[in-house]
Order: sequence, then structure tokens, then C-alpha cells
Amino acid sequence: MQTASHFIAVDWGTTRLRAFLCSIKPDGSLTLVTRSAGLGVSKSPLSFEDTLMQCISPWEFEHGKLPVLMSGQIGSSIGWKETAYLPCPISPQELAKSCVHFNCNGYDISVIPGLSCQLENDNYDCMRGEELQILGWLQLAEENQKGRHLVCLPGTHTKWVLVEDGKIKLFKTALTGELFDLIANHSVLIQEKSKLFNQEAFDCGAAFTLNSEMGSFMHGLFSVRSRQLFGQLGKDEATSYLSGLLIGSDIRAAMNATEWDLTKIDKVSIIGAPHLSRCFSRVLESQSLKTEICKVTATTLLGFNSVFQSTNHLNKQSA
Amino acid sequence: MQTASHFIAVDWGTTRLRAFLCSIKPDGSLTLVTRSAGLGVSKSPLSFEDTLMQCISPWEFEHGKLPVLMSGQIGSSIGWKETAYLPCPISPQELAKSCVHFNCNGYDISVIPGLSCQLENDNYDCMRGEELQILGWLQLAEENQKGRHLVCLPGTHTKWVLVEDGKIKLFKTALTGELFDLIANHSVLIQEKSKLFNQEAFDCGAAFTLNSEMGSFMHGLFSVRSRQLFGQLGKDEATSYLSGLLIGSDIRAAMNATEWDLTKIDKVSIIGAPHLSRCFSRVLESQSLKTEICKVTATTLLGFNSVFQSTNHLNKQSA
Repeated sequence: MQTASHFIAVDWGTTRLRAFLCSIKPDGSLTLVTRSAGLGVSKSPLSFEDTLMQCISPWEFEHGKLPVLMSGQIGSSIGWKETAYLPCPISPQELAKSCVHFNCNGYDISVIPGLSCQLENDNYDCMRGEELQILGWLQLAEENQKGRHLVCLPGTHTKWVLVEDGKIKLFKTALTGELFDLIANHSVLIQEKSKLFNQEAFDCGAAFTLNSEMGSFMHGLFSVRSRQLFGQLGKDEATSYLSGLLIGSDIRAAMNATEWDLTKIDKVSIIGAPHLSRCFSRVLESQSLKTEICKVTATTLLGFNSVFQSTNHLNKQSA
Repeated sequence: MQTASHFIAVDWGTTRLRAFLCSIKPDGSLTLVTRSAGLGVSKSPLSFEDTLMQCISPWEFEHGKLPVLMSGQIGSSIGWKETAYLPCPISPQELAKSCVHFNCNGYDISVIPGLSCQLENDNYDCMRGEELQILGWLQLAEENQKGRHLVCLPGTHTKWVLVEDGKIKLFKTALTGELFDLIANHSVLIQEKSKLFNQEAFDCGAAFTLNSEMGSFMHGLFSVRSRQLFGQLGKDEATSYLSGLLIGSDIRAAMNATEWDLTKIDKVSIIGAPHLSRCFSRVLESQSLKTEICKVTATTLLGFNSVFQSTNHLNKQSA
């Protein structure tokens, strides 16, 4: 069996499909050649096969039928091939070994499973797709594979991931982004959602949550409205203030989490959209915590490459 | 000037208008004769005058043009006659003295102002309408007028009101009910809202918030989804679990509030819709706190009566 020098990474979530044609140099490093996009698991009117082929078949003429790695909701119960949630702690090698393989239209496809972990109070958490960012982050620096690290993946659902000695140990999900959208678009707190970001209002919201008494999130939210009523907050500043309030609350929960001790962790690595990552970084740094922002696409593709190298290696062994 | 033996109380909020024809016995006690309903401040296509007249003019034939007391958003900037928010601490007498009076179509109308208070972090809170329930609660028992008491008004926005020696000292608003509606109807956490209440799931949600580490609300919310994914919670139980989670969080915030010390307060008085009041009572009692549930309409009308007696008394003095 020949070692492929190209593969296709597919990040296939609920609302979007993102496909990346990647090239691997002999030293194992990765270059993104080109990309395409399609509709997510719950959005596409086409079959999963047709949706995928629309995105990747244009690359066939030049490259042939490349190996395809897929992650995200495509591996869930509402996806194409259901994969189990693998329990943490887990190493990248164990994750790669558990991929579900099938053939479609002449393509060798591997679906990367999601992860689960057990938290306090007999409560479970789970992720599908974000694990690739962690695998990639582990490749970013040798020091990431030793010791205890906290990685923050802000988004619709923020994931806080504890990595220990190269393994994903556990993680916690916060509904930050989804709550922001719900409240900004549908509540009485904000009459008109502003698209302009206001740094001062954001800082004020974050400071309010971080400096308030314990457990006051439900009470603090009303300040979005009362501050407008009492002339402390402009209507066009309310959205940014709300964002600060929610991110402040998310970070406060992470600071109080019993699963890790943030004061004993060197830095928090943040992998997310640039503006959101800067917001999280700013609030964390205001609490005297060091942060590092990592590029989301590059890190995710490093993760896919890590799985690709492992499965490729396994294939070579079994060949 | 003659002392009226009847008056009309109008609770006029954003979505609903509720008018009550009340009769006063010579000893000052109140009987509800009949009621009518109309559309709220932001809902009615008619003018405020026409909306009100539709509700109360049928009573004119028998009773003439009775005095009308109004409270709620009708006194706000989007209402009919804007009244200021009066700062706490405030006594019922001071509140009654600050009513805004006007004449409409031969009716003497008094609008009862809302209240504001200043909390930690230069944050204000406000209410319009709920203050009548507190005024009424003060009339329920003589002991309510002495010492420190906490009154909980659950609803779209829960109000926690600290009463001290017969005055409304301060209060805090939590977005509990509104968040419940947003999350139950619009989030990924709940696929299908269940109308059946499940006590066990509710208790489980409340226990989860109350026993979790500090500040974990944003993280805890995701358990609504993960518990369904991992078979710990039925789809038809998720709505009740979410309700428990939110009410637990609201109560936890009240227990941690620095403005009062719940362990030093005899009992929490709850004034709200029956089912919701029982939910709050159950969770508070699970935390070894005593509660008392008061009937919402009867208590509100007692509050209107207290204002009516004061303004009537003032009128008699000035006559």
C-alpha cells in the first residue's frame, strides 16, 4: 500500500460542512491546498453521499479518490454513520484507532468518533468535532504533550478541555454562545441588536459578572435592561455588554471549576474565531491568567493530519 | 367629598390588562365584585383610553364613575402617563402619596409609580406593578410590618424583595421565567417542549444546580442535553428538568445574596401563580428554609386597597 501524500479533511457539523484538501510533505507537515463548503447534517436536502460528492468530487480529476477523514455531527445519531462517544481520558492514538471506516463511491472514508467524559454529580459531557482541535493543539508544541494544560474552545457551546500528559482528560461545555444568541435576539433585555462591538460596554459586562457575588448570573442578566433604563448603558452598547456578561460568567465558572485549578495552570490556550478568541483572552488576562490564541483552521487541520498519520501508519502495518 | 365604597384596580402590564371592581366594607376590608380583561400596553391596537373604557365602562351603569387605580407598565415610558421610579427604601404611605392623578372621560385615575433601588456595583433594579403585591402582603399579617422579611415573586422576571419594618428596602430581579421560555422553545437543549410536569425530573434539575460547584450555571445548562444523550433523562422529562435547573439557580443566587442573610430570615413568603409558587416553595424547603405561599390576586388587591385607603384619606384631608 502506497503512502498517500494528500487527504481530504471534512468538518461536518449540524449547520455546515467544511471540506479541506490537504497536502502532506515528506516530513509529515501539512499544507492546505484548497477548500469547499456545503450544508450541515440537519440542513442539506440532498443525501449525505450527494452532499459530500458535491464538495469533494471536483478534486478527483487532479488527485484521484483521496482518503477522506470526517468529524462532527456526521458521526452522531442524526448523521451518516453513527460512532460511539469514546470515554476520556483518551490519547490521540486510541482515538485514531477507533475510527469507523467505510467505502462510498470508491472513496475510503473514516469517521472520527466523538468523546465523552464523566463529571461531578453523575453528569456526562460530550463533544463531536472539537476533539480535532485538541489533537491539533497537541502538535503545536512539544511542551503541550507533557503536564497539565487547559484549552478553551469558544463558540456556540464553549468547551473547556483539560489535557494531561498528551491525553484528553476531561472537558466541560458551557452554553455561552447559544445563550447570547437567544437573549440578544429574543428577549426583552435588548430591543435592537447592535452589530458594532463596543469594547467599554463589553468590559463593563465582564467586570460585572466577575466581581458580583457568587451565583448571581440569573440576577445579573437583568442589569442589561436596568442599565439601559437608568441611562448607564446606551441601546447600541447593550449587545456588547451582554456579551461581556456571558463570557465573564463562562470564565468565572472555569475559574471556580473543581476539575482543575486555574491558578496552577501556566496559560489558557484559546482556539476559536478571532474576535471571540480575543474577547475570551481579554477577560482571562484581566484575571491575571496568561493566554495564547491559536488559529482555528490551522489547528483543526493539524488534528486531522495527526489522525491521518496514525491511520495511515496502521494501514501500512497491516498491509 | 364622599368616601367611596367601591373602586377599580387595574393591573396593566406589557401583555395584559386586568381590571378588578372592588367593594370596601366599612371596616376597610375588601371584596372582589367582578373582573374584566384587556390587552397590554404593547399589544392593544386601540388607544389607552378606549382599551380601558372597554374594560370598565360596563360597570358604570350600576356604580357610576368609580375611582380607578392603575399600576404596571401603563406608568412607564411606553405607557399612558409616565411616572418616575421611586427610590427604595420606601413606605406604602410615601408610594401612595406619589401617585399621578388625571381625569379621563369623567373618571378620576391614579397611576401608582414603580420602584427602583441601588445594588452592589453601581447597579440599579426596578419594578412596575409587583410593588402592589408587596403592599398587599404587608396587610396580610401584623407581624409582616415589623422586622426583616424576604418576599419572592416568581414569574417571567422573579423579584426577590427585602422588606424591613414595613418599608420596601431593596429588591433583585432574576430572568428565570424568560430564560426558561427562551431555552425551552428555541434552544438545541430541548427538541420538543413537554407540557406535562415531571416532579422527579424537576427535583433532579434543582438538586443539580444547588449541589454543583459555584458559578457553574453556564456549564450546568448543557446537562439538559447530555443527560438526554446518555439516557439519564427522557425527552418528555427535559422541560421539567430545565425548570428545576433554573429555579434552583435562582434560589441559589438568593441564598448567596449579600443583601440579606437567608439563614436569619424566618420564612420566605411566595406570591405567584400556584404551580410556580409550589415549585419555588419545594426547592426552598429542600434547603431547610421555611416558606409561605400567598394568593396572588387577593394579595395584589389588598395592595391596591392600601393605596386607595391612603389616597382617599389624603383626599378627605385636603377636602
